Amino acid sequence: MNEAELIALYFAPLAGEGGLGLRDDAALIAPPPGTELVVTADALVAGVHFFAADPPDRIAAKALAVNLSDLAAKAADPLGFLLTLALPGDWKPAWLEGFARGLGEVAKAFHCPLLGGDTVATPGPLTLSITALGAVTAGKMAPRTGARPGDALYVSGAVGDGALGLALRQAQLADAPAPVWAAALAPAQQADLVDRYLTPRPRLALAQALRACAHAAMDVSDGLVGDLRAMMRASGTSARIDLRMAPLSQAAAAAWRAEPGLTERLFCGGDDYEILCAVPAEARGRFEALAAASGVPVTAIGMVGPASAGDIMIGPDGAPLTFRQERFSHF
Amino acid sequence: MNEAELIALYFAPLAGEGGLGLRDDAALIAPPPGTELVVTADALVAGVHFFAADPPDRIAAKALAVNLSDLAAKAADPLGFLLTLALPGDWKPAWLEGFARGLGEVAKAFHCPLLGGDTVATPGPLTLSITALGAVTAGKMAPRTGARPGDALYVSGAVGDGALGLALRQAQLADAPAPVWAAALAPAQQADLVDRYLTPRPRLALAQALRACAHAAMDVSDGLVGDLRAMMRASGTSARIDLRMAPLSQAAAAAWRAEPGLTERLFCGGDDYEILCAVPAEARGRFEALAAASGVPVTAIGMVGPASAGDIMIGPDGAPLTFRQERFSHF
Repeated sequence: MNEAELIALYFAPLAGEGGLGLRDDAALIAPPPGTELVVTADALVAGVHFFAADPPDRIAAKALAVNLSDLAAKAADPLGFLLTLALPGDWKPAWLEGFARGLGEVAKAFHCPLLGGDTVATPGPLTLSITALGAVTAGKMAPRTGARPGDALYVSGAVGDGALGLALRQAQLADAPAPVWAAALAPAQQADLVDRYLTPRPRLALAQALRACAHAAMDVSDGLVGDLRAMMRASGTSARIDLRMAPLSQAAAAAWRAEPGLTERLFCGGDDYEILCAVPAEARGRFEALAAASGVPVTAIGMVGPASAGDIMIGPDGAPLTFRQERFSHF
Repeated sequence: MNEAELIALYFAPLAGEGGLGLRDDAALIAPPPGTELVVTADALVAGVHFFAADPPDRIAAKALAVNLSDLAAKAADPLGFLLTLALPGDWKPAWLEGFARGLGEVAKAFHCPLLGGDTVATPGPLTLSITALGAVTAGKMAPRTGARPGDALYVSGAVGDGALGLALRQAQLADAPAPVWAAALAPAQQADLVDRYLTPRPRLALAQALRACAHAAMDVSDGLVGDLRAMMRASGTSARIDLRMAPLSQAAAAAWRAEPGLTERLFCGGDDYEILCAVPAEARGRFEALAAASGVPVTAIGMVGPASAGDIMIGPDGAPLTFRQERFSHF
C-alpha cells in the first residue's frame, strides 16, 4: 500500500471540510470572525510516551486528547488538527484501523476534524505528532503568565488518577505484582485508574468559564505541583496550596490512605490533563457557576501571593512539603 | 539539560510574537483580516528523508523550506510554524546549535517565525515534524483540483537539479565513484546541484501571481511527471507536456546530454520544490508579468486537456514517454 492509498483508506474518512479530502498540499481554514487562533503541538514516541502494546485506538485517542487539553487550557474551541505519523515498516492493517477509529472517536466527540498531515516510514519506533488548532474570542486566551496575588487557584476534576493508572499499567505489562496500595481498591476502581491513564478527557467544556473569568490557566499534564510552580514562575507570583483540599477520586483517596508514601506520585506524577487556573476574587462566584453549568467539577486548592512569599504546599499533616521530583519528565 | 532549558537556549531566540516566548501551552495568532488560513505539515526521519551525516543547519533549513514550499504552492504568505523534534539521547550541543541556526535563517528569510512545538526523547532516529501556517486572501487559495481544459501549464525555476544533487550526495557519503554523467560537469556545477538538493528555495515570491492568475497549483516535490499527473487526476483533466520545454539548469542539461538515460531521474526524481500551476489562456500575459516582477522564472511546458485525452509526456525524440516509476516515494 502506498502513502496515498493508506491516507485514502484510513484517514480521509476523518477529514473535515477544511481538509480538502486530504488530497491537497494543505488545509484551508476560515476562523470565525472576532476570534484569534490558538495552536499547539505535541509529539509522542512508542516506548517513551506510550507502551507499544497499548491498544492502537487508545494511543490515537490520547495523542489527540492531550493536544485538546492544551486548547482547553487556553480557553479555545477546537477547529481541527493535523497528524504526522512515522510508521515502522511492519505496520498491520488492524493496527492502523484501530488507530484511525480511536482518532475519529475523539475528533467527533470534541468537534475537531482531521485537516491534514503527513505519513512517512521510519526504521525506528512509531512516532506521531499532532498540531491542534482552536479559536478563542480575540483578547480572551487564558495565558500561563497572568496569575496575580489574591487570585484563587482552582483545579478541575481529580488529580493523581493518571499517575496511579500508569503504575498499574506498568505492572500489568511487565507481568509484575500490582503495587501494594492496589489491594485497597476494587477491581473496577483499578480498571478506572488505568482508563484514566489511557484515555484523558480534555476539559474543553470549561473553555467558556475560563474565557469569562480566568487570569491564567494551563493544563496539568506533568503533575500538579510542578505545573503549578511553572505557572507561578511564568506569572512572577507564588502559590500557597493545601494538598488536603486537592480533588481526588475515591480510588486515589483509598490508595493514599493505604500508602501515605504516594503523595509525590499523586501530585507530581503527571497524566492528569485537568485544568489549573487562577481566578480573581470578584469572579469566583461566576466561575463556579459557569463551571457547574458546563458539568466540569472545579475545586479551590489555594491562593496566589507575591513571588517573595515562595511556593508553599501544605501536606497531609498540615506542614509544608518538598518533593524530590516535582514534575514528571519524559525527556 | 532538561526540555525547558533546551527550548530556552536553542529555540526561544527564534520565537515570533505569537510564540509567547515558547513558555505557554500554545501559540496565539491573529490572521490578517480578510484572509483564510492555510496549514500544512511534513515529517522527516533521519536516514529516510535526509542523511544523518548532513549538516544540521541544512537539515533544519530543508525541513522548514519544504513546508514553506507547500504554502507557496497554495498562494499563501507565511505566518509562522511549529516544530516537534524527537531527539536521540546522544544529541550534541553543537548539532542542536547548527540545527537552530539553519532553522532561524530560513525563518528570517521568509518571515516565518517559530510559534511553538514540542521536544521529546526518542530511542530511534531523529524525527522532526513541522506545521507551517500561512494566510491567503479569502477565496484565493490555489487548489490542486482547479485545472481546466485549455489552461496552460507552467513550472517555476528549473527541475531535476535536486534529484541529480541527491545522486551526487549519495556517492559522496558512500565514498563511491561519482555517476558517469558527473564527468560532464565542472566541480562548481556539481556543488550547485548538491546545494539544490540540500537547500530548497521555497517559491513564496510567486504567491501573488498565483493568487491573481492560477486555476490550480501544487509544489513539485516528488518529481514533475508524477506530481503533474496527481494534479490532473485531482482536477479531472489530462496534461500534454513536452519535456524538451521543461526548464533545466545548465548543469542538468549538460548531464542529460552526457547521459540520455537520466530522463526518468530528471523528471520523476523529486526534490525540486518548484511550483507547477495551471493558468487560463486569458491570464497568461498577466501571470508571466507578475512572475517576472517577483523574480521567479516560469516556463510554459504544456496544456491541460479533458481527462479522456490521457496524459502525454513528449520526450527528447518527439515521441511520448512512459516511466517505470513516475513519482518518488520515501514510503
